[in-house]
Amino acid sequence: MADYRISSLKSPIDVTEYLFARLHQVGVRSIHGVPGDYNLVSLDYIPKAGLKWVGNVNELNAGYAADGYARVKGISAIMTTFGVGELSALNAIAGSYSEHVPVVHIVGCPSTASEKNGMLLHHTLGNGDFNVFMNMSRRISCCAEKLIDPSTIAAQIDHALQQCWLQSRPVYISLPTDMVQKKVEGERLNTPIDLSYPINEPEREDYVVEVVLKYLLAAKNPVILVDACAIRHRVMDEVHDLIDKTQLPVFVTPMGKGAVNEQHANYGGVYAGAGSEPEVKERLESADLILSIGAIKSDFNTAGFSYKTSQLNTIDFHSSTITIRYSEYPGVFMRGVLRKIIKTIDLSQLSAIPGPRVSNSQATTPDGSEVITQAWIWPKVGQSLLKENDIVITETGTANFGIWGTKFPAGVTSISQVLWGSIGYSVGACQGAALAARDASEDRRTILFVGDGSFQLTAQELSTMIRLGLKPIIFILNNSGFTIERFIHGFEADYNDIAGWNHIALPSVLGAKEGSYRTYQVRTKAEVNKLFKDEEFNTADVLQIVEMFVPKDDAPRALKLTAELAAHRNAE
Amino acid sequence: MADYRISSLKSPIDVTEYLFARLHQVGVRSIHGVPGDYNLVSLDYIPKAGLKWVGNVNELNAGYAADGYARVKGISAIMTTFGVGELSALNAIAGSYSEHVPVVHIVGCPSTASEKNGMLLHHTLGNGDFNVFMNMSRRISCCAEKLIDPSTIAAQIDHALQQCWLQSRPVYISLPTDMVQKKVEGERLNTPIDLSYPINEPEREDYVVEVVLKYLLAAKNPVILVDACAIRHRVMDEVHDLIDKTQLPVFVTPMGKGAVNEQHANYGGVYAGAGSEPEVKERLESADLILSIGAIKSDFNTAGFSYKTSQLNTIDFHSSTITIRYSEYPGVFMRGVLRKIIKTIDLSQLSAIPGPRVSNSQATTPDGSEVITQAWIWPKVGQSLLKENDIVITETGTANFGIWGTKFPAGVTSISQVLWGSIGYSVGACQGAALAARDASEDRRTILFVGDGSFQLTAQELSTMIRLGLKPIIFILNNSGFTIERFIHGFEADYNDIAGWNHIALPSVLGAKEGSYRTYQVRTKAEVNKLFKDEEFNTADVLQIVEMFVPKDDAPRALKLTAELAAHRNAE
Repeated sequence: MADYRISSLKSPIDVTEYLFARLHQVGVRSIHGVPGDYNLVSLDYIPKAGLKWVGNVNELNAGYAADGYARVKGISAIMTTFGVGELSALNAIAGSYSEHVPVVHIVGCPSTASEKNGMLLHHTLGNGDFNVFMNMSRRISCCAEKLIDPSTIAAQIDHALQQCWLQSRPVYISLPTDMVQKKVEGERLNTPIDLSYPINEPEREDYVVEVVLKYLLAAKNPVILVDACAIRHRVMDEVHDLIDKTQLPVFVTPMGKGAVNEQHANYGGVYAGAGSEPEVKERLESADLILSIGAIKSDFNTAGFSYKTSQLNTIDFHSSTITIRYSEYPGVFMRGVLRKIIKTIDLSQLSAIPGPRVSNSQATTPDGSEVITQAWIWPKVGQSLLKENDIVITETGTANFGIWGTKFPAGVTSISQVLWGSIGYSVGACQGAALAARDASEDRRTILFVGDGSFQLTAQELSTMIRLGLKPIIFILNNSGFTIERFIHGFEADYNDIAGWNHIALPSVLGAKEGSYRTYQVRTKAEVNKLFKDEEFNTADVLQIVEMFVPKDDAPRALKLTAELAAHRNAE
Repeated sequence: MADYRISSLKSPIDVTEYLFARLHQVGVRSIHGVPGDYNLVSLDYIPKAGLKWVGNVNELNAGYAADGYARVKGISAIMTTFGVGELSALNAIAGSYSEHVPVVHIVGCPSTASEKNGMLLHHTLGNGDFNVFMNMSRRISCCAEKLIDPSTIAAQIDHALQQCWLQSRPVYISLPTDMVQKKVEGERLNTPIDLSYPINEPEREDYVVEVVLKYLLAAKNPVILVDACAIRHRVMDEVHDLIDKTQLPVFVTPMGKGAVNEQHANYGGVYAGAGSEPEVKERLESADLILSIGAIKSDFNTAGFSYKTSQLNTIDFHSSTITIRYSEYPGVFMRGVLRKIIKTIDLSQLSAIPGPRVSNSQATTPDGSEVITQAWIWPKVGQSLLKENDIVITETGTANFGIWGTKFPAGVTSISQVLWGSIGYSVGACQGAALAARDASEDRRTILFVGDGSFQLTAQELSTMIRLGLKPIIFILNNSGFTIERFIHGFEADYNDIAGWNHIALPSVLGAKEGSYRTYQVRTKAEVNKLFKDEEFNTADVLQIVEMFVPKDDAPRALKLTAELAAHRNAE
């Protein structure tokens, strides 16, 4: 620090101005969070950076919203206050870490002088330890920076944002109150942060490509299986080029849902082991080679580890590792490998046998009842509700299993938390996703499906959506409690029941003005059909809540199967 | 484990049955929490242990509620699920740690087999690390036990509950699904867990008592100052005996509010440095000896470190340390020292000069306006609303500063989070406190004062109160946003505004049946006076919500002062 002088700065600007300018440069337009006295002065800088403050109802919701925002806009930021605020957001940040979502978590902290003097401040544990919360967050961040030395702060910010983007995981930035207005070099802003992806060592890449091609060209009926990390690590251009070039059939996992254009001729459906449609399961599991791209083979993503595939028939492309059968190639980035395969493959030697064609046809299968069943509603959503470029959010439970049965129009973004599975997530994520679409000036509808049990955890985030004038369509699936839990254990147990709420009265109570929202209740297939044909409803010109009554004892087939396997594993 | 056989158990019972029986023995009657698949089987054991499941709306609220329950009932328990559930509760548990509240946090975890195999399960970070969340919680727990070996589990449970009680801080118990039904020795239940307080080494205690008495008897005008840890570490019997015996004037800090019977002739008021009433400040700061019992000298507890007292005039009694002037006596428990002082003091040598007499008289001071001011309402609450044995909960903000101006009837329990200061806490705490009083079969009213801003963070916990049939009186102080933040920074800034809610419509929306609740709105002093005289209202026979409109730019004097000092410290 000795040689660092403000007078040596060519274009001195405040730390917070620098931080927010950098956030703007990487694509953030709104900052989620809740005000607290250790971050208040920072908040003053938001408008001048061309950003907007969201002002969520609480920090957990803010964290969920930031996650949803990042899944649509590419990256997001949340600002909380020391201790109380940051810890409330921890579950959401852990979810972003688990699911590879790039969120910048900025925590307003007590001044460095207060820390040095070990002052007994509010929002501390009273033990003088000012690092305890940061140390907790380190475990769920790919980078954590404490900004205490103006001579390094700009570089620390750049490093954190770079890592957030490249590793596609949360980073933690601790901003003490007395650093907010310290000066850093503004000239740095003229050079964007280097977000370019690492390039493979050419010889190593060539070697791996050669091995991949050897197996691929030898295969009789290879397929492509796309999973979450293909989206998170942004190789979807490569994946689509690979499909177009090779004409191989392509499947997605539940976490990969929405990655691939499901209207593409080569799209074959959702593969999740025993949770798949029979023809999907048959085709995938009989393939003699699976190009598995960005896999996260978690329990809920594989219907309880029910894959019947062999590693001997699998090539796994991970962000920075390739695994071919049992041979591992660490330090090789899939991006370059995929690109080179596309460029060099000799199509004349490739056997590309078409896969199954999926449709939303189940929706038309009559079962002689007007009850809205899980088997009926999800294909129906694909057939009659969704439009191109919709954003579809499904809560953990019947919704994120049910959506496997929905074939999307092109351009649909699907948001769900299949691995982390924190109930209540989707309501916050809906706010963030809808705002992200608006911030990107994209005319996309945001459609949420959430169960009544999960909805209660974070319901008040509806208030933020109302205040911001967002216009999502929110389906509350009213099945009287925690149906997913019922299928795991305690079907009739009290602990899976919840209080009955008057859902459609909520917007008005939470501040929505007459005319700025619409609510609906649907109890029959006929009512659903009517609603999905309603022009006004489909324009999504105001916030809309649809309370959909579904049987408490009905669940998608894949959920039942996964729940049964989970219960069995719990008892082992 | 080799020599451990179920057949060697005299009276084998399941692990969870043992755990819940122990919780019942130490005084827990209701378990807070949210169901999740890793804890579902455990929940089946709750009724047979004579316990009730609360089933909160989310885990943060459950944590706050458990904290409130423990402050009334002595100890509490919360059960969450691995990862997602436990992390959501972390802020609440950290608050209990910070404020010395004994809460048993039980986390249902994946089976030991799943952990051993590093399975990629839902609610994990996807990296095979099953200890990451427990390691986070270790930092905010005085004891953390992972139950993985049936031969040690019973002892681990006993140890955790003992530490929870004795250290008066949260403990963490990790309960894998496959341990839930393992067998442990039921005979142990016939011997209660040893919760007896440690006894001082006699010679050491005598030495310290002698030094205390030397200074105390030499003092001309000594006083007693009671703070939070006197309550948390359960020495209030000793403190009251000390007052009765010595007839010294006694003061409380904000965090010590409610510790002392404020109708006692020796009660002198609330001392918080510059935030005190003038006569209190004068008397305390002119004392030549302060017997400070259980002090937590935090910023908000001292109105921004504005004590004008000298350590040369102070004897600090802490749970396990005594500090006399600058001499420290670690490992000496205040309980024994206080008891021996009471027993041995020679009153003929003691100078006990009466302190000031506080009253709620300000309430009668006319200011010529019908506006409900902070200066008026708090003494008014003491004068006309509160009754003996009420439980009074005040949220961080105008309420927990304002309550300094309320003189309590005897037996009032005051709950607030002055050190941790997490907004939204009080709504959860209200549920827990009201339930604790009911579980203790005590006929006590629970009265909450919460600002409209803080209320929004945890508002849906009202639903749990409704479902459980609790009957708190909830005052929502509607001052259009975060007034405490306004006084720290950004008085007119957007980020301190909130959405306007229709507060009195909430009970009905959240499931309350007609006739099972009452709501009120008060905007003038006359309306307050009328309400406080309303017999029906005072019986508190149903859940009641009072929306009280107060000016956005009004705050208790002590809050303004503390906020100013906080803003100054942040900028240093």
